[in-house]
Amino acid sequence: MKQLFVIKIGGNIIDEKAKLLSFLSSFARVNEPKILVHGGGKLATTMAAQLNIPQQLVDGRRITDEATLKIVTMVYAGLINKKLVSILQANHCHAMGFSGADGNLILAHKRIHSTIDYGFAGDIDRINTPLLEEMLRMGLTPVIAPITHDGHGQLLNTNADSIAQEIAKACSALYEVSLIYSFEKNGVLQDVQDDSSVISSIRPSSYEQLKAEKKIFAGMIPKIDNAFTALNGGVRRVIIGKAEQLEELITNKAGTTISNENT
Amino acid sequence: MKQLFVIKIGGNIIDEKAKLLSFLSSFARVNEPKILVHGGGKLATTMAAQLNIPQQLVDGRRITDEATLKIVTMVYAGLINKKLVSILQANHCHAMGFSGADGNLILAHKRIHSTIDYGFAGDIDRINTPLLEEMLRMGLTPVIAPITHDGHGQLLNTNADSIAQEIAKACSALYEVSLIYSFEKNGVLQDVQDDSSVISSIRPSSYEQLKAEKKIFAGMIPKIDNAFTALNGGVRRVIIGKAEQLEELITNKAGTTISNENT
Repeated sequence: MKQLFVIKIGGNIIDEKAKLLSFLSSFARVNEPKILVHGGGKLATTMAAQLNIPQQLVDGRRITDEATLKIVTMVYAGLINKKLVSILQANHCHAMGFSGADGNLILAHKRIHSTIDYGFAGDIDRINTPLLEEMLRMGLTPVIAPITHDGHGQLLNTNADSIAQEIAKACSALYEVSLIYSFEKNGVLQDVQDDSSVISSIRPSSYEQLKAEKKIFAGMIPKIDNAFTALNGGVRRVIIGKAEQLEELITNKAGTTISNENT
Repeated sequence: MKQLFVIKIGGNIIDEKAKLLSFLSSFARVNEPKILVHGGGKLATTMAAQLNIPQQLVDGRRITDEATLKIVTMVYAGLINKKLVSILQANHCHAMGFSGADGNLILAHKRIHSTIDYGFAGDIDRINTPLLEEMLRMGLTPVIAPITHDGHGQLLNTNADSIAQEIAKACSALYEVSLIYSFEKNGVLQDVQDDSSVISSIRPSSYEQLKAEKKIFAGMIPKIDNAFTALNGGVRRVIIGKAEQLEELITNKAGTTISNENT
């Protein structure tokens, strides 16, 4: 089976030009078929403040009212997506930008919640895997902004981590997928204060032990649970680590690799 | 030879919701392969005003400084492009949005002018025709925002009329191309005050006569000269007319058709 790298780049890397350029240069050098999923960073928040649009967060999630949806569509699918694509093209990576509406790539529905109205927040229903496959076959590298649509003309704001996970799972029928979450930290840490306390490998049995012995930082647990969900969905391995170390992450020389026992 | 419609939609249609929805519904019903090129409307100007970024126009062309480039990238390639794509998808048109950077669709260079610095304004060098051909073959409808790139990581603001013309010419090697400029007027008018004074057909010989007899509104002359440039570049016919009459424009029942003698 052919390899595929689905790489999510965290928002804070996007805000730092030198780190971003270094990451994109490494990303462009990945020889295997690859997909980039990006978040939005602080730009949307800055833009909302400049336009005097108050932002409301509930449990760390942005409430996407109509004005906020306009901003995230502009910033994520416009400014950031096109910036990443043009820099990758300059690095000889044949990048092509997407929102979930483009070619009906990611169909979603407005989030339904019993008590909180998240506004135009989208939960993913379906990935257009044949479209991704065609793009990859043509030598193109999809660069995906965290905006989806509902198929009825409504754009939706969608979590970039979830997009990366759903794409990785959907592509697992066709590729041996490595899902990489690259961000500002070195990997999954035993001690959040100590950036050298990286746990290099986590498997289901060792995970239970790490949790029982409280040798894992609690804030990392949702990320690892998500990683196991991806593995159960067919993804071969999930790697969590520093964006500037992309090459080392891919070759297992840095970060945390999460995989099932027998892979 | 297979037909292809390259349709440019004027900015002011984008600003009026009912007209836009009507246009997109007609556009979605065009059965032949088609490409939509859109302008930006007043949204970029409104956004610049809200963000207190002064806009400078020279001879009707916007000077694109760095702050303005960010705005047009956000508004054209983000907000408007994704809105059009999502509405077309809802109308069962398999739309996919592009800027010129995506898949290296439109390579341009920063405009060089002896006296005026237009900033990040781009003049077109090359259209990636094989990419468009692949997209059309896959049943996708490209929706193109007027943002290009220089291949070295720089995005550029580019005139949507020029993009439509260059795409139409580039595709003429593979398709019999009709280039349609749809806007708020009924077509090329003899009298700009009288919207019923549409000249239904213009050919090189009749154009010379119309000009000699001053039976053509002077403001239309650059548009018609551009149309003849397109015809000389291989385009089969150029149609100018009202966006809400797209169906009639395509079937020669409305608007102005500009073509060479023997076609």
